[in-house]
Amino acid sequence: MSYFDAASSAPLHPVARQALQASLDEGWADPARLYREGRRARLLLDAAREAAAEAIGCRPDELVFTTSGTRAVHTAIAGTLAGRHRVGRHLIVSAVEHSSVLHSAEMHRNQGGTVSEVPVLRTGMVSPDAYAEALRPDTALACLQSANHEVGTEQPVAAVAEACRAAGVPLLVDAAQSLAWGQVEGGWSLLTGSAHKWGGPSGVGLLVVRKGVRYAPQGPADERESGRAPGFENIPGIVAAAASLRAVRAEAATESARLRELTDRIRARVPELVPDVEVVGDPVRRLPHLLTFSCLYVDGETLLHELDREGFSVSSGSSCTSSTLTPSHVLKAMGVLSEGNVRVSLPLGTPAQDVDRFLDVLPRTVAAVREKLGAPASAPVVTVQDDSLVVNALGKRCPIPVIELAKVITDVPVGGTVRVLSDDEAARLDIPAWCEMRNQEYVGEEPTEGGTAYMVRRKAP
Amino acid sequence: MSYFDAASSAPLHPVARQALQASLDEGWADPARLYREGRRARLLLDAAREAAAEAIGCRPDELVFTTSGTRAVHTAIAGTLAGRHRVGRHLIVSAVEHSSVLHSAEMHRNQGGTVSEVPVLRTGMVSPDAYAEALRPDTALACLQSANHEVGTEQPVAAVAEACRAAGVPLLVDAAQSLAWGQVEGGWSLLTGSAHKWGGPSGVGLLVVRKGVRYAPQGPADERESGRAPGFENIPGIVAAAASLRAVRAEAATESARLRELTDRIRARVPELVPDVEVVGDPVRRLPHLLTFSCLYVDGETLLHELDREGFSVSSGSSCTSSTLTPSHVLKAMGVLSEGNVRVSLPLGTPAQDVDRFLDVLPRTVAAVREKLGAPASAPVVTVQDDSLVVNALGKRCPIPVIELAKVITDVPVGGTVRVLSDDEAARLDIPAWCEMRNQEYVGEEPTEGGTAYMVRRKAP
Repeated sequence: MSYFDAASSAPLHPVARQALQASLDEGWADPARLYREGRRARLLLDAAREAAAEAIGCRPDELVFTTSGTRAVHTAIAGTLAGRHRVGRHLIVSAVEHSSVLHSAEMHRNQGGTVSEVPVLRTGMVSPDAYAEALRPDTALACLQSANHEVGTEQPVAAVAEACRAAGVPLLVDAAQSLAWGQVEGGWSLLTGSAHKWGGPSGVGLLVVRKGVRYAPQGPADERESGRAPGFENIPGIVAAAASLRAVRAEAATESARLRELTDRIRARVPELVPDVEVVGDPVRRLPHLLTFSCLYVDGETLLHELDREGFSVSSGSSCTSSTLTPSHVLKAMGVLSEGNVRVSLPLGTPAQDVDRFLDVLPRTVAAVREKLGAPASAPVVTVQDDSLVVNALGKRCPIPVIELAKVITDVPVGGTVRVLSDDEAARLDIPAWCEMRNQEYVGEEPTEGGTAYMVRRKAP
Repeated sequence: MSYFDAASSAPLHPVARQALQASLDEGWADPARLYREGRRARLLLDAAREAAAEAIGCRPDELVFTTSGTRAVHTAIAGTLAGRHRVGRHLIVSAVEHSSVLHSAEMHRNQGGTVSEVPVLRTGMVSPDAYAEALRPDTALACLQSANHEVGTEQPVAAVAEACRAAGVPLLVDAAQSLAWGQVEGGWSLLTGSAHKWGGPSGVGLLVVRKGVRYAPQGPADERESGRAPGFENIPGIVAAAASLRAVRAEAATESARLRELTDRIRARVPELVPDVEVVGDPVRRLPHLLTFSCLYVDGETLLHELDREGFSVSSGSSCTSSTLTPSHVLKAMGVLSEGNVRVSLPLGTPAQDVDRFLDVLPRTVAAVREKLGAPASAPVVTVQDDSLVVNALGKRCPIPVIELAKVITDVPVGGTVRVLSDDEAARLDIPAWCEMRNQEYVGEEPTEGGTAYMVRRKAP
């Protein structure tokens, strides 16, 4: 059993469990009450806030506890947009933010606000210059994650914060993926985090609003947590969150180096062991425990299922693993292959032999999935039309359209074209990505009856 | 040590603790993931939902878990007002709802909606007829608590639900105080609850939306909990909440009868043991474990402090115990005395001898507080003006104005009047309440320089 999906949720850290259990006896009372049980609960809450603030690098009165990282993000964006509505209604996000940020942006747009989405390089990183160019006089808020949750790429937060500061715009940093590893550097204005990502309990997030940021809490009034997080405080959870953040930070230096070695090993070995693989994300500026690769001609859902049977729990940004059958917006924004996508994120303490076993299991698992998929796609429906070979992959899901394209590309002469008809959303991302990987020319797409036609021109080998 | 404030937060039930600890090992993973850890988390979540739904009396797919009762109320009101905005923007609440309901109503009013506040009888109960009269063709939502959190009075939910159903208006029942004791009867449409009120963990609330209610989730999109409660699910907390609700219900029949005896004893004995006390709330239609009384000439904060020193943790709706220095809106709506207010709410398993000790300690504690207060108030500033004795209590806090009034009332002849000048908000409630208790005639109030003049006419004894 190897759980390799710490970026979704980390197993509860022993210190979190201990702190949770220890505070159940005193953490249930209302910290607003003046009797002894209330005073004890208040002491626990105050101590947790101080510990968390120290770990984050802020003042205790700048930090409130929310009920999740998602809630912290929703709250931070709504509160800052409202607090700065006189400045304007322009919001900036990167194209690879967490869905909690993008869904907040979508709501803002639906309510008449404007949103700029800063694109990323193929590594998943925003360029500080591109970000700075998005800043406008009516920008109320800018958002940038500390590191990407799907590919691990670290963002240039300090440089972007500097540009924001120069423009007088507050920068919100979603630090959910990086808080275990250290403080977020640079002059950010707001910061959010999520305890279950660092081995704390679920049900606890945090929101930091630096003094001086214009901030107007939204929603019905509630006195708790400086009016920024309504509802009765989950004190045992909060105590466990703060204690485990400190514990994880104490291990961070050694574990970070050790896990980086392991993820470096996977990044290097996978392309050697598995043909037709693209390792994505920045190779250097990245989280120590996380890496992502995509396997051509592989159905992500089947691969995850087979890896699960082999005892490996990983996640995927492939379209077939999402409820909406669209590939991950992160991979899309990066322009990289999404089919057969695998994200590996190692929890603290992952033994090296688990990684070795993964490298042992992966090649044959991928090969088996490819073999299984080869059969149904073995007879592409091919016609010739105006000098172009047409592959009709309508009604077929990722990775079949790409597999059928790969099968016929050598059937046309160099300079000849293949038109792939597909109604699968993943094809829009994966056919160009395949062309890049196989050194073929991607010409473009056009609407066709029942779907889209993707045109590929065969290059000289 | 006797904790008598279960209505604020109940100590963690042993079953909640057990279930929490047992589910920490499996409840940390993301239930949306398809690998084994995710599937196990999903099983826990599904089982908890079924157990909670059975206890509430609804379908599992009608129930979502929120992060607090407050959040459930905010969500329910916002979602129903939005879902039914075509019907109109009229909201009905009772005057004695929990602050989470009233603050939602306040926000709705600030956003241009209209709100009707249904008054209550002196017992704290709404009249079903008065409630029905508030229903209008443009009413989007009606809210009524199952039982009041400050005085324990049960509301006629079934009758009000019937009237709402006839008018085609959904009724939201805030059942936070009553869920431990049983299901809410009648044809309600939405229901909210809070786990830490029944001995479950903090950080878990629940929201039921009956099939057929037009409901539009507000805020940024999030797939979890049917799109009604964003953020990563706190599964150990949810499991503990559901398990403890079942456990508490299993004890409810016997504990309810036993605690009712104890609270009946306090209700009967306090007025015998302590002079000048008003026991408030419905004597019969009330929660089994909760009672409230107010003590004339007593400063609530000092009384709570003294009771805490004696080992009793209780709460109070007196103005001096609130951060805003205004008396509880519930006591105000009932028109009862707020000074020296004490709420006793017994947790499950409260031993009878703790109650006896409370009855032993209370009379001398109240007497001591009164003696202490008598001294500073011993020389009321009295002048005669237009046939009326004027007591200048400006700048003096509750209960001093009432104490000074009581001191001078026999200085005027029968039919003569006393004008009490006060700038304390509690006087508006407590001077009329004192008149009612002491059989004096309350004439009315008028603005005066620096405050308000309250006029009292001495009646024949």
